[in-house]
Amino acid sequence: MRNLVKLAAAVAACGILAAPAFAETPNRGQLEQAVKSAHADNLKRLQDWIALPTIAAEQRNTPQGAEYMRQLLLDAGFQQAKLVSTDGIPGVFATLDSGAPTTLGIYFMYDVKQYVPSEWSSPPLEGRLVDRAEGKAIVGRGAVNQKGPETAFLAALHAFKATGRKLPVNLVLVAEGEEEIASPHFKQIVQNPEVLAAMQKAIGVFIPSAGQESNGSTQIDLGAKGVMEVQLISSGEHWGRGPAKDVHSSLKASVDSPAWRLVKALNTLVSEDGQTPAIDGWYDNVKPLTERQKQLIAEGVAESNEADVMKRLGIKHWYKDEDYLTSQLRLASQPTANIQGLVSGYTGPGGKTVMPGRAEAKMDFRLVPDMTREEAEAKLKAHLAKRGFGDIIVKVSGGYSPTETDENSLLVKSQMAALKNAKVEYSLNPRQAGSWPGVTFTGAPLKLPAVGFGIGTGAGAHAPDEWYLIDSSNPKVAGLDESAMFYVDYFYELARMAKGARK
Amino acid sequence: MRNLVKLAAAVAACGILAAPAFAETPNRGQLEQAVKSAHADNLKRLQDWIALPTIAAEQRNTPQGAEYMRQLLLDAGFQQAKLVSTDGIPGVFATLDSGAPTTLGIYFMYDVKQYVPSEWSSPPLEGRLVDRAEGKAIVGRGAVNQKGPETAFLAALHAFKATGRKLPVNLVLVAEGEEEIASPHFKQIVQNPEVLAAMQKAIGVFIPSAGQESNGSTQIDLGAKGVMEVQLISSGEHWGRGPAKDVHSSLKASVDSPAWRLVKALNTLVSEDGQTPAIDGWYDNVKPLTERQKQLIAEGVAESNEADVMKRLGIKHWYKDEDYLTSQLRLASQPTANIQGLVSGYTGPGGKTVMPGRAEAKMDFRLVPDMTREEAEAKLKAHLAKRGFGDIIVKVSGGYSPTETDENSLLVKSQMAALKNAKVEYSLNPRQAGSWPGVTFTGAPLKLPAVGFGIGTGAGAHAPDEWYLIDSSNPKVAGLDESAMFYVDYFYELARMAKGARK
Repeated sequence: MRNLVKLAAAVAACGILAAPAFAETPNRGQLEQAVKSAHADNLKRLQDWIALPTIAAEQRNTPQGAEYMRQLLLDAGFQQAKLVSTDGIPGVFATLDSGAPTTLGIYFMYDVKQYVPSEWSSPPLEGRLVDRAEGKAIVGRGAVNQKGPETAFLAALHAFKATGRKLPVNLVLVAEGEEEIASPHFKQIVQNPEVLAAMQKAIGVFIPSAGQESNGSTQIDLGAKGVMEVQLISSGEHWGRGPAKDVHSSLKASVDSPAWRLVKALNTLVSEDGQTPAIDGWYDNVKPLTERQKQLIAEGVAESNEADVMKRLGIKHWYKDEDYLTSQLRLASQPTANIQGLVSGYTGPGGKTVMPGRAEAKMDFRLVPDMTREEAEAKLKAHLAKRGFGDIIVKVSGGYSPTETDENSLLVKSQMAALKNAKVEYSLNPRQAGSWPGVTFTGAPLKLPAVGFGIGTGAGAHAPDEWYLIDSSNPKVAGLDESAMFYVDYFYELARMAKGARK
Repeated sequence: MRNLVKLAAAVAACGILAAPAFAETPNRGQLEQAVKSAHADNLKRLQDWIALPTIAAEQRNTPQGAEYMRQLLLDAGFQQAKLVSTDGIPGVFATLDSGAPTTLGIYFMYDVKQYVPSEWSSPPLEGRLVDRAEGKAIVGRGAVNQKGPETAFLAALHAFKATGRKLPVNLVLVAEGEEEIASPHFKQIVQNPEVLAAMQKAIGVFIPSAGQESNGSTQIDLGAKGVMEVQLISSGEHWGRGPAKDVHSSLKASVDSPAWRLVKALNTLVSEDGQTPAIDGWYDNVKPLTERQKQLIAEGVAESNEADVMKRLGIKHWYKDEDYLTSQLRLASQPTANIQGLVSGYTGPGGKTVMPGRAEAKMDFRLVPDMTREEAEAKLKAHLAKRGFGDIIVKVSGGYSPTETDENSLLVKSQMAALKNAKVEYSLNPRQAGSWPGVTFTGAPLKLPAVGFGIGTGAGAHAPDEWYLIDSSNPKVAGLDESAMFYVDYFYELARMAKGARK
């Protein structure tokens, strides 16, 4: 679900150090040589991983994907890695203890989005290398979301292992296989007592990411909306009225219609213009943006080309024809009620004279602080019940509350320092309009900082021809080896700043 | 579209003649022998026809089906048969002039409904014979709707041809290949000057039908609702707002949603309970049922088993829990606005975080006298435009106005007489809840009586394993040969009564 929308592509100014970069990584050349020597192995590792797609919505390769993830972690130097069972697909928990005073948390997803092979120009599971303007890139489902960036992270660890060196920080890692269905059981993984005890030692958590623009800039997302994915189902069989299955449409006058019932129920959920949630009490806990958050968004808008963004999205107007800044403030600050899909009765070409026994709206509700996923479900159900739609099935298939991380946390400050060291321009994005389950870390009981972090690039998440850059032709943008070395350098930077903070 | 719903399965009392039946058919044994001798040929003719499905919605076998129809008519003894071009799929027009003083109009459809072969227990195009409780039946798409009954009618004509005898009436026949998409061009066929001139000589029109119940009873449908089939499409591309194609759902807060727009537009079309059309002026021309129509419906309800009907339809409650009679009066008298299907965005299992660029509702509106198809389209469009939904595409894919025929017309009186002669119990149904394009005959300029008529049986129209009875094991229900002989006898009965009427 990550990395798809970065409207507020803010580029906050940051100085480029005059001093030589990477000064804090001892004997850096040795590690860099190890990364370069393992280039083919790392690439092969990514290709093999892409060949085994775990797709939660299809229950595809779910135990295999977890076991594969576990093995990848052990191979990279984690001393222990184990499956964590849930009510859904198992997670993986691993630790790498190097005896350091500082522990860093890492979040991996090992699942990928569904794909339609016929839409791809290169087979989605082959991981072929293709030449792009950006350089040599691997094409495959999961390439950038998230196996490529995660492979870069693992490549950093392999360099330590290959050189027999200890990491300057300890690692504790949790991985899930249900990110693409909105992490319905991720809380069960993290709140496993053994996992929780280990995570509590961490100064924060990040997921390896690769979002460099062509000018080399990247951003740190300090927060993201939460989400609740719901299928609303109106069923004659469940309702006890109307047809149990599709019947001839001529019956309509005398028989109740589940499809119309769904339309009437949906109609109550949003404002007359179809845009604003109108569910009872929906805004009770909506917290306005802070002045600092507004400032960051304004900086982002100032640096962004509105026309380019609209063109890329294929839209000609923002809602209400608002100006760019107003629209982006709305995007960050407002909860949503979205229809992902409608399906009922006959869906082929033209018409067919049936009256359907079932109608379904697939929806997602984006949540902003301080709304919670639990609150959203309770309020949606109460709203429908109050209006006599208690028969509409509310099937919550996934979701989690919003997440926020303090830019003054050690995690974010050390990341900003690492980006500065690497001469990578970056911006702070106060809140992604998309979602990721960061709240599992930032919420109680852990209350840890949690963000996406990394360099490198790629695109096409959830779309055909998803790609991740392996060998960059642009000195400002990292390929696989540079991305791995960035994590190596980050470990040392974090250790150095943590030490400073303890003094 | 015919023959699917016969809720008001009225069984009006009718005496069974003590006198020998068929007394009016001269040298009947000769014709009966011809029908029996041609049994295998007639069956083969039906099987070959089933093997060539014309499906208008899929533009499948459309010129071939018309040409095949033309040839079938010539083979049966029509002296001329020609294609009639339209803006859509061609019709067929044929005449059989036997120099008689009376001319009978016949309506054929040569198209069939779509089918899904995997749902059939016998291949839908093979026309295999299977043993049923009712006797030996042919299974195939179009078996009962309408190629089987039409084949029985043609078999009657072949008997005249084989015996070198002249029909006691002249025939003028029109056939269309778009009945299953609501006859969008049938008016063009009938109003072709040559066709119109020929049809004006007819005393009325019928479509060969086969609707005997297991007790042998059948009904004559004196009228049927009209219909307008419409696809309502909300498209970001057409609207100029919202996404032109599916985009990531996180954008919802700042981008208009075509799917929500469709929901909001649909919401205005019906009452709060989703049941009654709420389109401006929709009821302006709705004519109440006459006392005679109510009486016929009440007779039908009295003879019908409500529990059986509900069980067959798979419903547990009529709308508003009305009693059976009230519900059946509503069914006959009220116009409808039905959702046939909804399709937008992601329609697979679970959810997918997209915001669709397009949403479509497939609808049919059933119309009662004196509403017209043209009025319905104009009012629907005006209703949407008045509420600011002028961007919603209203794609009318077919339809026609309602139809009514006088039970005192020569056509119906001669049919009642023929049924009495054959000792077949029958009822009069004042108005089918379903639709057929009878208005093309009953409306201006022809203003002819028009009904469905015949004996025999079958089921599964529009459904898998559609069948038509060939050899009946029930003496009260006709097979193919008996159905053909019924038309033979009817020709003589009509000629006799027409002669009486002229006296």
